[in-house]
Amino acid sequence: MPTSLITRDYPRPVNIEIGINPYAPGSCMISYGMTKVHVTVSVEEKVPPFLKGRNVGWLTAEYAMLPGSTQTRIDRDRKGVSGRAQEIQRLIGRSLRSVVDLSVIGERTITIDCDVMVADGGTRTAAITGGFVALTQAVYKLMKDGVLTTNPLKCRVAAISVGIDKNGKVISDLNYDEDSTCETDMNVVMTSDGRYVEIQGTAEGDPYSPKHLEAMLISAKKSLVPIFEAQEIVLKDFSLS
Amino acid sequence: MPTSLITRDYPRPVNIEIGINPYAPGSCMISYGMTKVHVTVSVEEKVPPFLKGRNVGWLTAEYAMLPGSTQTRIDRDRKGVSGRAQEIQRLIGRSLRSVVDLSVIGERTITIDCDVMVADGGTRTAAITGGFVALTQAVYKLMKDGVLTTNPLKCRVAAISVGIDKNGKVISDLNYDEDSTCETDMNVVMTSDGRYVEIQGTAEGDPYSPKHLEAMLISAKKSLVPIFEAQEIVLKDFSLS
Amino acid sequence: MPTSLITRDYPRPVNIEIGINPYAPGSCMISYGMTKVHVTVSVEEKVPPFLKGRNVGWLTAEYAMLPGSTQTRIDRDRKGVSGRAQEIQRLIGRSLRSVVDLSVIGERTITIDCDVMVADGGTRTAAITGGFVALTQAVYKLMKDGVLTTNPLKCRVAAISVGIDKNGKVISDLNYDEDSTCETDMNVVMTSDGRYVEIQGTAEGDPYSPKHLEAMLISAKKSLVPIFEAQEIVLKDFSLS
Amino acid sequence: MPTSLITRDYPRPVNIEIGINPYAPGSCMISYGMTKVHVTVSVEEKVPPFLKGRNVGWLTAEYAMLPGSTQTRIDRDRKGVSGRAQEIQRLIGRSLRSVVDLSVIGERTITIDCDVMVADGGTRTAAITGGFVALTQAVYKLMKDGVLTTNPLKCRVAAISVGIDKNGKVISDLNYDEDSTCETDMNVVMTSDGRYVEIQGTAEGDPYSPKHLEAMLISAKKSLVPIFEAQEIVLKDFSLS
Amino acid sequence: MPTSLITRDYPRPVNIEIGINPYAPGSCMISYGMTKVHVTVSVEEKVPPFLKGRNVGWLTAEYAMLPGSTQTRIDRDRKGVSGRAQEIQRLIGRSLRSVVDLSVIGERTITIDCDVMVADGGTRTAAITGGFVALTQAVYKLMKDGVLTTNPLKCRVAAISVGIDKNGKVISDLNYDEDSTCETDMNVVMTSDGRYVEIQGTAEGDPYSPKHLEAMLISAKKSLVPIFEAQEIVLKDFSLS
Amino acid sequence: MPTSLITRDYPRPVNIEIGINPYAPGSCMISYGMTKVHVTVSVEEKVPPFLKGRNVGWLTAEYAMLPGSTQTRIDRDRKGVSGRAQEIQRLIGRSLRSVVDLSVIGERTITIDCDVMVADGGTRTAAITGGFVALTQAVYKLMKDGVLTTNPLKCRVAAISVGIDKNGKVISDLNYDEDSTCETDMNVVMTSDGRYVEIQGTAEGDPYSPKHLEAMLISAKKSLVPIFEAQEIVLKDFSLS
Repeated sequence: MPTSLITRDYPRPVNIEIGINPYAPGSCMISYGMTKVHVTVSVEEKVPPFLKGRNVGWLTAEYAMLPGSTQTRIDRDRKGVSGRAQEIQRLIGRSLRSVVDLSVIGERTITIDCDVMVADGGTRTAAITGGFVALTQAVYKLMKDGVLTTNPLKCRVAAISVGIDKNGKVISDLNYDEDSTCETDMNVVMTSDGRYVEIQGTAEGDPYSPKHLEAMLISAKKSLVPIFEAQEIVLKDFSLS
Repeated sequence: MPTSLITRDYPRPVNIEIGINPYAPGSCMISYGMTKVHVTVSVEEKVPPFLKGRNVGWLTAEYAMLPGSTQTRIDRDRKGVSGRAQEIQRLIGRSLRSVVDLSVIGERTITIDCDVMVADGGTRTAAITGGFVALTQAVYKLMKDGVLTTNPLKCRVAAISVGIDKNGKVISDLNYDEDSTCETDMNVVMTSDGRYVEIQGTAEGDPYSPKHLEAMLISAKKSLVPIFEAQEIVLKDFSLS
Repeated sequence: MPTSLITRDYPRPVNIEIGINPYAPGSCMISYGMTKVHVTVSVEEKVPPFLKGRNVGWLTAEYAMLPGSTQTRIDRDRKGVSGRAQEIQRLIGRSLRSVVDLSVIGERTITIDCDVMVADGGTRTAAITGGFVALTQAVYKLMKDGVLTTNPLKCRVAAISVGIDKNGKVISDLNYDEDSTCETDMNVVMTSDGRYVEIQGTAEGDPYSPKHLEAMLISAKKSLVPIFEAQEIVLKDFSLS
Repeated sequence: MPTSLITRDYPRPVNIEIGINPYAPGSCMISYGMTKVHVTVSVEEKVPPFLKGRNVGWLTAEYAMLPGSTQTRIDRDRKGVSGRAQEIQRLIGRSLRSVVDLSVIGERTITIDCDVMVADGGTRTAAITGGFVALTQAVYKLMKDGVLTTNPLKCRVAAISVGIDKNGKVISDLNYDEDSTCETDMNVVMTSDGRYVEIQGTAEGDPYSPKHLEAMLISAKKSLVPIFEAQEIVLKDFSLS
Repeated sequence: MPTSLITRDYPRPVNIEIGINPYAPGSCMISYGMTKVHVTVSVEEKVPPFLKGRNVGWLTAEYAMLPGSTQTRIDRDRKGVSGRAQEIQRLIGRSLRSVVDLSVIGERTITIDCDVMVADGGTRTAAITGGFVALTQAVYKLMKDGVLTTNPLKCRVAAISVGIDKNGKVISDLNYDEDSTCETDMNVVMTSDGRYVEIQGTAEGDPYSPKHLEAMLISAKKSLVPIFEAQEIVLKDFSLS
Repeated sequence: MPTSLITRDYPRPVNIEIGINPYAPGSCMISYGMTKVHVTVSVEEKVPPFLKGRNVGWLTAEYAMLPGSTQTRIDRDRKGVSGRAQEIQRLIGRSLRSVVDLSVIGERTITIDCDVMVADGGTRTAAITGGFVALTQAVYKLMKDGVLTTNPLKCRVAAISVGIDKNGKVISDLNYDEDSTCETDMNVVMTSDGRYVEIQGTAEGDPYSPKHLEAMLISAKKSLVPIFEAQEIVLKDFSLS
């Protein structure tokens, strides 16, 4: 039975604080355990060249780690974005685009900026979950201001990492130490109604069996329940209809 | 039944030609349908700074599209690697590293260079499959030359894309047009003994259900059978033991 | 009398919160009114090439604005540091170096990272004041750990901006609106015993008279009193001797 | 007599294969001995800023070496084009522009992309010769499609290297080893009717006498005869009038 | 008395030669002692994006050191402008903008290019003084040509450095050796009618007292007298009214 | 007869002023007509990585145009060297290397910096001629100081441009207007004893005949006579033996 492979199917403590930034239409500070990510949303009245004149909008994301966010200071991406950051910000952008109807937001670009304050594993998944919170606030504001008349959000989205540890057991929401030593690391981005937005499962050590894949998917789904609840609580005053 | 969702579970014609490059210890030209990727392997007697003095090796990959490989000319990455190329070359590197025992190759760096001659969907999966072929040749040569005494290859690896089309049906090895219009696109990297090295499944349109995920995994596995056979045929003279 | 030219000689509310970052030996979140800057200190066991082998240390600073820190989103410095950021981080570095005896810290580099969370004028002065707080914590930790045996801090340092408004009146600690419309903008970096570390006074509009210069210096000195007090309170448990 | 200085006045085996690329209007794989260059031609409906609104076209070239093309892997030009590549692609562009009447192609840019698959000396001369082949195909296609009504090609062009070896003897079409050790290296770009498009003769070792110059020019002209023939054969179905 | 702290209150020999460059509307070679700076002024019929359509002009400056200008060759800024150069060129631009009424020059950009031929301290102050000379010539030419009808220059501007030496004494116009060893270095940019355009006073060693600040300001003002005279002499044929 | 094709076989007035730069071991300001180039030579006690430990030296050149050197201001190469500048500085370096015996200068790098003050055609040829002058001074100084014991200069070198004008006539030392409109432009680098160091002849318009090539070579050789004389005069006190 795949479930017998699972030793942890719940996330670290999740905390989401909103209203962090006085200028941004949406912003939050989200933490998964010690990991802490600062998210702001901006809305600009323009679209990238490839969308000009097509009356649709765009959503993109940027991800960066502050130099002091890790145990050893890391350099800023001042000479070009690192491969890792590119990969992560593309994932965040894709994940949030999948729940937004870009055809109803007009020629606007929504940018999700995710800056890691403290990095202890799971920064990209926290950024997606927090990104959705800040995005909802921004959409709420745009609708209240009459800029948008239709709610572009199709459903809610959140993310979690799962992995296979050295003993072949599946654990959820890996911290830095667990992530560094695990055999397989998988990020799962899901909607609140149980569908997949993105699955990225990488064998860092040994390739993994179909049974382990199944166990990781079960564990991810279960771990996302309290995370969706945390989103719900913090967004209760931003209901869109 | 997930299989009822599948309308195509085999790849386009696969062709692998080896010995393309007289200087490289391993090289091939691989095609999946019209898609064609040129792969060379280089071996250098050094490792990246983070591995120095630890008596282990490294394997990395670079991916680029030649300007004429697409219908509209695309610019070279001369001012920094694009986000897409970074993401792809990191995937290729990770996938091939997962089947190499880096602890037995000494302080050497193996670089897999993948240059897309013609792009019609599936360039990254072809690059992984072809990368393994060129890598095997290079390892064979290193062992024959006495540079390596232990075979570092743990098993064979290959890759295929699967997707969900507009009608909700699962198809394998998407070409460019299919890839541009599909709802979900998934890349599956597997070993020849049926384990996963990497799964990346992205909903470009609607999120996908667990049933669709299952169908895609079935389709990918079946599609990889003729691809592994193509590898086997071309590598029959490079058996390592 | 120069003082008759002064209409505001005290800063906006100053708030300093320490212990923000679990990994950094020193860190704080400092605000001057709505302006908010996140500061972390890192210590690395190396020096820049020009100091190698001379048994002295180095202190440097980096400054960046988060994209959501301003009313209109600003781009990250991903293709090279902007002229403004370069100028500011050089000022922060010089100001803090002036109170550190680099000859007693060994071949180490102390880096002060200043990231602006909210920008409403005075980000560089807040960064210097907060930088000193985080630096003191880091030095305290290094001495407690026995890494340093002599206290390298020679005195305390803090900074404030003053300016001349449209009516020719001197005001302290300009917010963004005041800064954008003032005739002259001056940054004053002082020690707690009343000496100058750096004065930068720029006429954005009309050049300023010697009398106005005198009034600005008086106003700056008075405005720094509550700022030095804020430092003292937050650092009371980090006394070095 | 200058001819007594000549020991080799013919090229290595020349091979040109066309129709390599299904998307490009013109493409070929050309080899001079072991040297092999992949050439594609693209046509875009735009011109560089300095030509806008002047109703003339432009032709430019890009040159790059694939990392595996040399005996020791060479890095890609991902942080800016190297001086050598710049110099070569400028030469290729100039050489092909000299036989094109840019005033009859409209506001279009023709780009010749030359990617070196194997480098064994003479890559730039092979690129020019092959570039002309691919260009002719593209022009033929544009005329057949009615995009162009006048043939812009004024005459045929091809190129060869000649040099002076350690013994003071002139040899043609130097391979890598000969090129590395020769005293003088000269590239000659000629039209099929015997006029010069470009001559670049560089003394790497000792300066060369007027007699040697004459011998090199004689040798180059003679060596170009079989190269022009190879062009003619491969282009026989693309006659323009 | 502050004046008792002063040991040198006059500049090194100042020399200004105009008409250096046949193409530029204004140009000069200025020297402060051995320091020598080449200045040219260009006028372009465009403004930066942030000023478009507002019917005002812009003035900016660029500063660079020729590689041979220092005792040890310094690299060119070919991969981005160094922090030091950015800071200096921003100072030069601000200083000259402060005496120009940008609202009467139309949508034009005036660029002051300052290239250091020989660097022996005071290059930025010489650049400002020389920049004003070249700027005046350019304005004179624009008015003579009828391009401008109102003189945009509001007053004259020049600059000098002052510092505090190892013995606590104030000296003017520091050369390289003095600058390298002084405790404090201050740049003073003044108008010919005795007002300040910019003051930048930095304690490189010990912070400085208010008394020393006063002495430096006195010394700077006195040292600027012969510099303003040198400007006047060279500009006597370019009187604007 | 080729000579009947020649209408100008002498250079514009050549002027060389030495001792321009107090810090550089060799320096000059050279003009060909209105064209003016500033040259300095630096000597550093190191070689590029590819020469380390081989006990030979290196000579390299850098070329740049000051922004005010042309009629319309040109941008500095601050984001990477332009293709044109790369090509020119490589030519200058090769030309001067050809007359230096690098095996007797030890592990040193000689850098020739050429900065164009005024550009009116022929900047690269003036840079080569002036580069040789500055190089000779530097070598003289190194020998006088006992750093070198053997004279590494094998012969003298200088350069000139020749071209074919619209009427098919050959002219020497083209100025900017002539260069912009000529059919062919050729740069000839020669030694004082009549051998070629480099020939670069490019047809900008129509390809040129062998007869025209001969006429250009005759014209170049004759035009170099007064240029070699100018070198001789200015270097009379720097005789090396």
